[in-house]
Amino acid sequence: MDRRKGNIYSDIPDHAIEEILENMVESETVRVQRIISDAHASPEGFWYDQRENAWVLVLRGSAALKFEGEDELAVLNPGDWVNIPACVRHRVEWTDPKEKTVWLAVFY
Amino acid sequence: MDRRKGNIYSDIPDHAIEEILENMVESETVRVQRIISDAHASPEGFWYDQRENAWVLVLRGSAALKFEGEDELAVLNPGDWVNIPACVRHRVEWTDPKEKTVWLAVFY
Repeated sequence: MDRRKGNIYSDIPDHAIEEILENMVESETVRVQRIISDAHASPEGFWYDQRENAWVLVLRGSAALKFEGEDELAVLNPGDWVNIPACVRHRVEWTDPKEKTVWLAVFY
Repeated sequence: MDRRKGNIYSDIPDHAIEEILENMVESETVRVQRIISDAHASPEGFWYDQRENAWVLVLRGSAALKFEGEDELAVLNPGDWVNIPACVRHRVEWTDPKEKTVWLAVFY
């Protein structure tokens, strides 16, 4: 691993057709990823069902996660984080329609 | 791992005599930690020399890292991150004197 550096708010485009995923650092056991959403949501009927655990933090914007079998959405505003264990089915119900949502995700 | 959640800006005290370190999530291979500095710096002559890699991000406040053998400090403002490989000796030269510095560190 080298001593790379950056700014998590740099190079955010005005519009993004698809979500932008960038690994800031990765090893055999962990990936630290920046995600930029531009009002994106998971496709109808789609559920994430990941083999990795994910710790996710919203830094800018906002988002709502839906966990399978739960009625209430988990709304994330700046600073809010949630740990999503592997194989916990969830989807992104919405992200902020007014500004880009910047996430930090640690997959481990 | 459970589905714990929180806000990285919650419960920041007005003053902290020592730096506050809190693991938000941890596994066998990774620790995601919040660090709150209140104008703290590493003690004179102290160098971190860690067995783990560390990816660190400043979210609020500011800080300067000094890497052994380098004259120039690595100044971190909100959003700035740096990956510090294991065994790279470094110290915190200063943190913001005017406000608390909130760091996110991923040790892996």
